[in-house]
Amino acid sequence: MKNTATLLINCPDRKGLVAAIAEFLYRHNANILHADQHQDAEQNLFLMRVEWDLADFNLSPDGFKTEFAETAKKFSMDWQLNLSSRKPRIAIFVSKYDHCLTDLLYRFHSGELDCEIPLIISNHPDTKRLADFYGVPFHVIEVNKDNKAEAEARQFALLDEHDIDLIVLARYMQVLSPTFVTRYPQRIINIHHSFLPAFVGARPYHRAFERGVKLIGATSHYVTEVLDEGPIIEQDIMRVSHRDQLEDLIQKGRDLEKVVLSRAVRWHVENRILLYSNKTVIFD
Amino acid sequence: MKNTATLLINCPDRKGLVAAIAEFLYRHNANILHADQHQDAEQNLFLMRVEWDLADFNLSPDGFKTEFAETAKKFSMDWQLNLSSRKPRIAIFVSKYDHCLTDLLYRFHSGELDCEIPLIISNHPDTKRLADFYGVPFHVIEVNKDNKAEAEARQFALLDEHDIDLIVLARYMQVLSPTFVTRYPQRIINIHHSFLPAFVGARPYHRAFERGVKLIGATSHYVTEVLDEGPIIEQDIMRVSHRDQLEDLIQKGRDLEKVVLSRAVRWHVENRILLYSNKTVIFD
Amino acid sequence: MKNTATLLINCPDRKGLVAAIAEFLYRHNANILHADQHQDAEQNLFLMRVEWDLADFNLSPDGFKTEFAETAKKFSMDWQLNLSSRKPRIAIFVSKYDHCLTDLLYRFHSGELDCEIPLIISNHPDTKRLADFYGVPFHVIEVNKDNKAEAEARQFALLDEHDIDLIVLARYMQVLSPTFVTRYPQRIINIHHSFLPAFVGARPYHRAFERGVKLIGATSHYVTEVLDEGPIIEQDIMRVSHRDQLEDLIQKGRDLEKVVLSRAVRWHVENRILLYSNKTVIFD
Amino acid sequence: MKNTATLLINCPDRKGLVAAIAEFLYRHNANILHADQHQDAEQNLFLMRVEWDLADFNLSPDGFKTEFAETAKKFSMDWQLNLSSRKPRIAIFVSKYDHCLTDLLYRFHSGELDCEIPLIISNHPDTKRLADFYGVPFHVIEVNKDNKAEAEARQFALLDEHDIDLIVLARYMQVLSPTFVTRYPQRIINIHHSFLPAFVGARPYHRAFERGVKLIGATSHYVTEVLDEGPIIEQDIMRVSHRDQLEDLIQKGRDLEKVVLSRAVRWHVENRILLYSNKTVIFD
Repeated sequence: MKNTATLLINCPDRKGLVAAIAEFLYRHNANILHADQHQDAEQNLFLMRVEWDLADFNLSPDGFKTEFAETAKKFSMDWQLNLSSRKPRIAIFVSKYDHCLTDLLYRFHSGELDCEIPLIISNHPDTKRLADFYGVPFHVIEVNKDNKAEAEARQFALLDEHDIDLIVLARYMQVLSPTFVTRYPQRIINIHHSFLPAFVGARPYHRAFERGVKLIGATSHYVTEVLDEGPIIEQDIMRVSHRDQLEDLIQKGRDLEKVVLSRAVRWHVENRILLYSNKTVIFD
Repeated sequence: MKNTATLLINCPDRKGLVAAIAEFLYRHNANILHADQHQDAEQNLFLMRVEWDLADFNLSPDGFKTEFAETAKKFSMDWQLNLSSRKPRIAIFVSKYDHCLTDLLYRFHSGELDCEIPLIISNHPDTKRLADFYGVPFHVIEVNKDNKAEAEARQFALLDEHDIDLIVLARYMQVLSPTFVTRYPQRIINIHHSFLPAFVGARPYHRAFERGVKLIGATSHYVTEVLDEGPIIEQDIMRVSHRDQLEDLIQKGRDLEKVVLSRAVRWHVENRILLYSNKTVIFD
Repeated sequence: MKNTATLLINCPDRKGLVAAIAEFLYRHNANILHADQHQDAEQNLFLMRVEWDLADFNLSPDGFKTEFAETAKKFSMDWQLNLSSRKPRIAIFVSKYDHCLTDLLYRFHSGELDCEIPLIISNHPDTKRLADFYGVPFHVIEVNKDNKAEAEARQFALLDEHDIDLIVLARYMQVLSPTFVTRYPQRIINIHHSFLPAFVGARPYHRAFERGVKLIGATSHYVTEVLDEGPIIEQDIMRVSHRDQLEDLIQKGRDLEKVVLSRAVRWHVENRILLYSNKTVIFD
Repeated sequence: MKNTATLLINCPDRKGLVAAIAEFLYRHNANILHADQHQDAEQNLFLMRVEWDLADFNLSPDGFKTEFAETAKKFSMDWQLNLSSRKPRIAIFVSKYDHCLTDLLYRFHSGELDCEIPLIISNHPDTKRLADFYGVPFHVIEVNKDNKAEAEARQFALLDEHDIDLIVLARYMQVLSPTFVTRYPQRIINIHHSFLPAFVGARPYHRAFERGVKLIGATSHYVTEVLDEGPIIEQDIMRVSHRDQLEDLIQKGRDLEKVVLSRAVRWHVENRILLYSNKTVIFD
């Protein structure tokens, strides 16, 4: 059972930055397990992920906060510390399509996703049996034109009650309100069934089929105010040909959606994602 | 040295179609080497490519035309017969970027592209030395805002003179006039440096970089009146990450553009492409 | 609900072959939905798959057998007729790893695999709960060094009782005896966790990790007498790097194994596979 | 024109390592452009690549050597410093196949490979015209069963005279002697036309075709004493089907070989490759 801390840093690039961080960790007896960094010369940005074993580390999380404050201030750092002992808590939103949900729950169950899933919220009862199989509480909250605000209020209550860190839209067929989106910045992951920015919006497979593309794709991204415009986390494609009819595209697409969403959730859970300029850096 | 005929057929799907075609070829002693067909149930279309050895075949091209007319009429066929003895004649249009031209000429030289390349037309003199190396005549026709019609007239003259079947735009950085496009229906192949329909228009790598995509792509397509909207022949992608800066995207993209354009040209040259509904069927 | 017949043909290539088959089908009023063929010039072989709607077809399966006999004999055809109304009956063999089983059962449940799965046989009880969830009868037959023949006898009894057409080894960690393999020629599909012929035998991920390959793969194949030497049905790979430790290879590999096995099973179920020279032709 | 230094470090992992290196660079006023590191927990190894701008750096190469010695010793580092001002000097060995050579020379010419190529050595005169086109001196040294030692002696003389850092075997169809291999440890890159370890040895495409694989591949690797067993630098694959005959595999394979070799050469030239346990770490 690993017991580690992961630090994500985002700040202007400056000489002495790595020396200061490394020296700080060394001084407090951190045993660094992984470190990865990225410098964006154009924007003069420094982005870093560092993970260390807590066994010999001589600071508590609160102690870290106090002690690191000076370094962080000196270099104008945005930083975030996550402990492996505190698993991220995920709520999955789903409608009727169950392929992404099935995949996520299997990976959760098999230990591949190191998180808690305290609840599933759906606007349909269809996937309840699946949730039961994996022992995840399942809540039906119907959504229609007239009750959207009220439905979201009920969702917020559940999310608050369960102390949710991340919301995963596993083919959830409702558009979230701006209020919802604003409440969870960089904390909602969606799967879109095209290689964005191609086929933004509805019915991407239909449009891909009509356009006669030779590849179909899927894109996982953080949800922002503008539909399908949030920072892309992962994309993948599959080759199609004239032999593939619309239903073949949809079927092949399901396999893409599953893996592209799962990778995004995993990277988020493992604190591997940093955002800047509406883009993601994935420390893999 | 193979001596074959290739027949491409496009017609409404009907019972008895394959029997009629196969019987016709058998009656005239064709030795079928390859046959491939596609039925589009939705549009009730039948598309076929059949290639046979001419050694024992008892019809001349003109004889075929006469004899096949009845069958073709009965089934309302659009059809096209190509002989391997008459190699397609290609004109390559290029500007300054030489990676696609280098690739095409190498494949031509090595025998991978079974065609003639009687000329290269460029609006810049930069690639003349390369053309000379491969022994292909090179014509500079400058194009600017004021002389476009005149320049195209000179191009038409050259294309007519050399009996050109196919025009390949190997990163030719000029938009062809509607007159030009109309003159060569399904006879102009372009390479676009994105996975269309993403990043239609100019500077796709810049926009891909800004959007933070995790894949870059290239698309070869037939040129139609609407820019970047013609039937897609081939697409491919390459994975990129935050480590790739704009220049890396451009460099990786060059490798994509080369192969995606070359495959399209090859398939056209080998009569493997059929068009319907603004889409291509590739009989590979 | 489609009601079709699929004919697979394997015979020496000869003039008149396609004409004879097409004429036969036309004479009996078949409405051809798909036809695909392959000619191997080197071995002078003709391989064909043709699927037609039975709505207007004027022969029963028995009638077909009688009527087609003459044509089949004339051209020395090996042929096989399958009706969509008679779904293939599959037995899945599994041990403890459940990722392939989960994937197969989900695809079966969602209608992607058009087959019956009358039973699962395992040498361990671990996956019983999963089988129950999908409503598939589950049989535990323990296998050890001393009871192999007896265990296989019990397996044969179950396979016979349930009229099984195809056995899928979904990470079944027992080597089948020659008797078993011989009993089901081209009717056992296995998944091997490497891109064969690399890493034939045991512990392929360990060996891939030690060798420092940059790709890992999976291979589905028919089982023959020689371990890992049977005809390959499908292969796929995933990129790995120095950042991937052994457990990462194993985890990434699971995703490969699932899709590579599922594609093979699907193609078999849809009668898309023809064998020759220890190779497969996939009529996709 | 960039003016940078790149430091590659390989040593046992210990606390304080990153702090010591970063502090050293900061003290001498290095402006770090890229830093990447890898920790192998199993083998307790630390591997690092760091590149900095020399503009403000206050040590000469010799000064670096002296000043860094203490740190290096303390942590038992193997280290190597490369300056961008001193371009690696490459000799390309080639026989008759010219696709890899054409590709390498084009990339060299276009500036994609930041190196010098003072000479090409071939056992055949066929590619001389190509070498001339790109202005690279071309030497024919015939090799046969009787003159191998003598031929290699002439090669050594040329390699010494031109101060060669890296030898690229661009489909050079001669096996190098152990003497040759030992003379250039981790300084010879070869391209093998299979996804090693599949199809080690001769005629891999023939064997891939016979085995009926669904993927073909290529592998670039450092040459060691045991044929095809050296550390793998890069691999890639392409999908093939029953429609591909042997010549198609060979033709598709050429496209793989080109890119897989070029990537390896580029990474070597950019000092992105570290070796351990017969494996490569690619700092991309």
